[in-house]
This record gives sequence, structure tokens and C-alpha cells, in this order.
Amino acid sequence: MRTFLCLLAATAALAQQPPRLESPEVHTDGSVTFRFRDPNAKEVVLNREGAKPVAMEKNDEGVWSVTTDALEPDYYGYHFTADGVALSDPSDFSTKPNLNFTESQVHVPGPPTIPWELNDVPHGEIHHHFYHSKAVGDDRDFYVYTPPGYNPTARTLYPVLYLLHGFSDDASAWSVVGRANVILDNLIANGKAKPMIVVMPLGYGLTIPAIFSPGAEPPFGSNHRHEQNLTGFRDALLNEVIPQVEGSYRVRIDPASRAIAGLSMGGAESLFVGLNNTDRFGWIGAFSSGGLNEPYKDEFPTLDKAANSRIRLLWIACGADDHLKEFNQKFRAWLDELKVKHTDIETPGGHIWMVWRRNLAAFAPLLFTAR
Amino acid sequence: MRTFLCLLAATAALAQQPPRLESPEVHTDGSVTFRFRDPNAKEVVLNREGAKPVAMEKNDEGVWSVTTDALEPDYYGYHFTADGVALSDPSDFSTKPNLNFTESQVHVPGPPTIPWELNDVPHGEIHHHFYHSKAVGDDRDFYVYTPPGYNPTARTLYPVLYLLHGFSDDASAWSVVGRANVILDNLIANGKAKPMIVVMPLGYGLTIPAIFSPGAEPPFGSNHRHEQNLTGFRDALLNEVIPQVEGSYRVRIDPASRAIAGLSMGGAESLFVGLNNTDRFGWIGAFSSGGLNEPYKDEFPTLDKAANSRIRLLWIACGADDHLKEFNQKFRAWLDELKVKHTDIETPGGHIWMVWRRNLAAFAPLLFTAR
Repeated sequence: MRTFLCLLAATAALAQQPPRLESPEVHTDGSVTFRFRDPNAKEVVLNREGAKPVAMEKNDEGVWSVTTDALEPDYYGYHFTADGVALSDPSDFSTKPNLNFTESQVHVPGPPTIPWELNDVPHGEIHHHFYHSKAVGDDRDFYVYTPPGYNPTARTLYPVLYLLHGFSDDASAWSVVGRANVILDNLIANGKAKPMIVVMPLGYGLTIPAIFSPGAEPPFGSNHRHEQNLTGFRDALLNEVIPQVEGSYRVRIDPASRAIAGLSMGGAESLFVGLNNTDRFGWIGAFSSGGLNEPYKDEFPTLDKAANSRIRLLWIACGADDHLKEFNQKFRAWLDELKVKHTDIETPGGHIWMVWRRNLAAFAPLLFTAR
Repeated sequence: MRTFLCLLAATAALAQQPPRLESPEVHTDGSVTFRFRDPNAKEVVLNREGAKPVAMEKNDEGVWSVTTDALEPDYYGYHFTADGVALSDPSDFSTKPNLNFTESQVHVPGPPTIPWELNDVPHGEIHHHFYHSKAVGDDRDFYVYTPPGYNPTARTLYPVLYLLHGFSDDASAWSVVGRANVILDNLIANGKAKPMIVVMPLGYGLTIPAIFSPGAEPPFGSNHRHEQNLTGFRDALLNEVIPQVEGSYRVRIDPASRAIAGLSMGGAESLFVGLNNTDRFGWIGAFSSGGLNEPYKDEFPTLDKAANSRIRLLWIACGADDHLKEFNQKFRAWLDELKVKHTDIETPGGHIWMVWRRNLAAFAPLLFTAR
């Protein structure tokens, strides 16, 4: 018993703390109660991904709480804002890795037919690679999903999707937040998607401190950092990540077996890298993309309708409530002018992961199919 | 420019926030300034791993701060306690995954000779596996480090270290917090450790909700949950994880090529699994272990000095300031009574990761060497 007490005491100075609150508490109807202890705060607000901020109410013990309506099954990022300061939920161990701010995350479970629910199906594996990038001048990483049954010693070759995260995400975002591995496991088990390898690289063309140190200028807009970010990322992908993947995994290397897609900044990068290299990427997806400068001709100097013979799918999706809807409309209109064929998808929702999980679940089944 | 603004606005409701503080700010002499905005808190304290809590001071803008003395190069977990509530640092994206409480983490960099510093050496790869455990009845994961140059299609076979985390850690702890992959990369590059595979499984014999839901009873002490946790973990390791590893990696399977080690709860598990299976594990390490019940004979009914012919190394380390020092002394005295040979290591430090990174850096070079 003595040892037991010592072990607990040793795990944290948390022993002095009041007992951990139950937060988030997910009720059977899908409503969620959030709780946060902050006895001296004057105002605490719940910020939930895809919803307007909601004021929380304080009880006599200094615990603020709020219960939502029944929520649609999904994973929702959230944080509290206490007297103007954003804070993750100290009672919740489920976090969303992010280079701007680490939010908490709550799972409202749903039926097994939902693509991101963990099911009793064969699971793929995620590989985490580390290397020094000469293109960017930093030490960086990328993740590789191999599908169930992948065997490096067998003869089967797989097609590859390069899947890019958004601004402020790190390379783990598509697996940890986007649940790309679970989505692919389910799609493959149900025969809805071809078994494929998914590569999830770090998506910046500048170093993380250069972008995310306090006061650093974001790599967007008309400054040279926009161009550095796009071209640095392109060079790291084409000259460093792809050669490593093609050198160590059993993959097909023809353009009909190579796709690129991404969300937000990663959507812009997918368009930039994909449409400028249609000899290498036969499938291109842009989810809620933004961050390309006008005139678009400057970003895509050689793009014209001749690309239609090489592009098997150019899939451009955006949520109806997304801030970037206007960019997507303009960009698609420009593609129409060029007579470059594309598939336009408008879904409900804003600039949120709930949209991007559904985008991946809709896009992946279209890939590597007969033309 | 328009797109740029939208992209930023879309990344978070953080646009309404005051500018992000620079926290932690690591100075060139190794001192660190921590900052936390909380205008209405009455008391904010910095809790840093391995140090006593320190009161922070508030300025006119409601920002609390404190600057430490020069710190030894290392990674330090830390959090703030604001009016009694533990909070991670909202300005810091570097977190320590943990099932009780997600702390922040600060890196005080040091020279390349420090084993956990990222150096320009070949890097191994980390593989993340997911499976359904029949032994425990949950869906769980384990990580596998393969050393630089590992090639699944080559004939080389590698020895394996099973490396176990502590109570409240998850399966990512040894890589994300313990930097096991970086430590092994450096040791291997310098010829100090044999190239080896390191397997880092989830270390619980009960489900995570059964242990970590608010109000759940910890799996220690004289209750049946102590036994369930130990035996459930043992069964998952021996019957599920090891067969998967030995079925899909190029590993040696003789006891001279199989080691087990862990920290805290994982140290107790290494002793429990290792000393009860000396026909399978030739090398056993316990770092700051605790959580075995007396009489020890009940935990190790068949252990006697005959085990000396099978155990190549039984390495028992504990920090001089650790709460569990007394347990380790008693356990070693019991081994002495049995005449079971062991190496006793006392290091400076308490029940902290700074001790365990050094333990791994000292233990790994001893493994898989000639007797």
C-alpha cells in the first residue's frame, strides 16, 4: 500500500489538486457537458469547432459548465476562453496537435458505418520517418500509412496518395485529427477504396520557428514568404520525400498511381504541385483550399487544356460556410476559362475538420480507378 | 491578400485573442522565462519537472512570469497552477502526452554529445501498430523503433528491447517524451549500442477508461486490480505484441536477444514479466520501479538462484531523491537473500524523465553484448 501511495504521489504534483472534473462528459443522446474549474475568472466561454462560442456558467465551487444540444457523431476540437485567454481542457487528455495552439478534442461516437469510427476490421500501420531536409534546411518528418496486409517482401505494388495538412497543423494532423488511417482502413475493408499507401509530410517550405515564433510573419499574401513556402515545400516533397518513399516502399511510380490532395494551405499546395506537375500526379484534390495569389497564371504558367489528357481527376471541394468559398469559386472560374476539367464539390460546413474527414472519405474511393 | 486574411481567420477563433506570449523563452545561458496571461487569477505557480513549485509574478497587463536559474540541458515537463488548477501552457505547442494531465514541455538545448539531442546521424523509423487485444478487451497500440539501415528484405536479424512506460503515460511516451529513438540513433551512430529494435507497447492490463475515468480506482495496492493490471499486461505482451513483432520484423528470438525494461510501473512490469520468464528474456532493466506487492515471493513464486544462469543482466536503477527508493532497496535486499545477481544503480534525481532518459542511455549499451 505504501508503494502505491508513493507511485501516485510521484506521478504529479497533481495530488494537491482538486479532483479531476469529468470533462468532456458525452451523454448517450450525443449532447456533451464541458466543465472547467476557474474560481476567479469573470467570464469563461466554450469554443467548439464549427459552432459559435457559448458562455459557460459558474457554480458555487468555481466550476464553469455548459451542456450542448445533441451533436452529430464526430470529433470536435474545442477550448475554453477564460477572461480572453484560450486554454485547452485540463481534464481531457485527447489533444489536437497544432503549432499555434493545442486544443482539446471530444469524440461523439456514432454507428460503425461512419468512416472515422474505429471498427473491427484489419488495421494498417503508420510509419514515422525523420530526415534532414536540404531543401528547407531543417530536421523534419513525414508519416506513411501502409494498408492492412502490406508486406514489404511481397511483390504487390501500391498506388500512393500524398495527403497534405493545413496551416498550423503538424505532420501528424491527418492521422491524429483527421483519422486518415481509420478512414482508409474502413474504406478498404468495405471494398470502397483501393488499397493504397498514404504519405503525410510536413507541409511547410520554411522552418517551423520561421513561421510560428511569436511575431513571425505568416507565409501568405503578396510577400516573398508565400513563394518560399510553396516552392520550399514542393522541393522537399519532390526531391526528398517522394524519393525516400519510392526507395523504401513497394509503390507504383506512374502518374496514374500517384495522387496529391490536401486541406486549406495543403489544398493550395496540392494544386500548385499537382497542376504544375501533371506528368507526375494523375489525381489532384483540394479541400477548402486557399493561399494562391492572383493572377493565377503566375502560379501555373504552363497550365492549359492539354493537361486534361493527363489529369484523371481534379476534385475541388469547399464547405458552403467556408471563408475561402470565394477563392474556390474564382479559382474554378479560372479553370473554366482555361477549359481545364474539374469536379466541383460543395458540402455543408465551414473551415473545419468535420468537412475534411468527409472530403477524404469521399475522395479516396475515386482514386486509382479505371478511367 | 484577401485570401491570406481569410486563411488566418479560419485557422482559429484565436484572432480575437491577445497576441501569443513568448513562453517558454529559453535564454542562451539555459535559464528559461515562463509567461502566462491570467488577469484575474490570485495566484499562479510554475510547476517544473524535478523542481519545487515557484510563485509567478503578475504585471500590469495580467501576464504572470518567472525566470529560472540556468538549467542543465534537458527536456523539462511543466505546467502552471492558477488558483489551484493545473493548466498546460497555451503559448507552447510542445506537449507531453499523458492520460492524467497533458503537460507542456521545454527543451533547454545542449551539446551534441548529450544522448537525446537530435544530431546529423542516420535516423531510425518509428512504426505505429493498432490491434484488438483479446487479453484486455480493447483496441490498443504499440510502437516499434527500427534502427537506421533496417531493411525488411535483407537477411540481418536484430535483437529486441521491449521498453515500457510508466503509470499515466500512453504508448507514445518513450518516443515523444523519452526520446528513445533519438537516444538509440545517437548510441548506434557512435558505436555505443548494438543496432536493435525497440518495441514500446501500451503498458496497461486494464482498459484506459477503467483506469483513468474520473473517480476510477488506480491499479495498485492490495486490490485485485493490481493483479489484473500486471497479468493483463503480461498476457497482451507475451501472447499478442511479441507474436506480432516476431511475425513481421526481422528479429532474433533467442532469450539472449530479447530484453525488457521500463520505468516506474513499467519497471515493475519488467521485473514481473522478465523474472517470471527468464527462459524468454535474457536482459531485464527496472528504472525507478514501484508497484510490486509484498511478500515478493507471491509475485515471483519460482524465482531462485538458478535464474543466474539464464539472466545476462538484471539492472535495477533508482534516483537518490525518488519516493520509490525504499521499495527498490527492499526489493534488491530480497534478491540478495535469494542470491539472484543484479546490478544496482543509484543516480541523482527523483521520479522524473531526466533520470529515465539517462537510464536508457546507460542501459542500452549494455544489451546484447557477449557475456
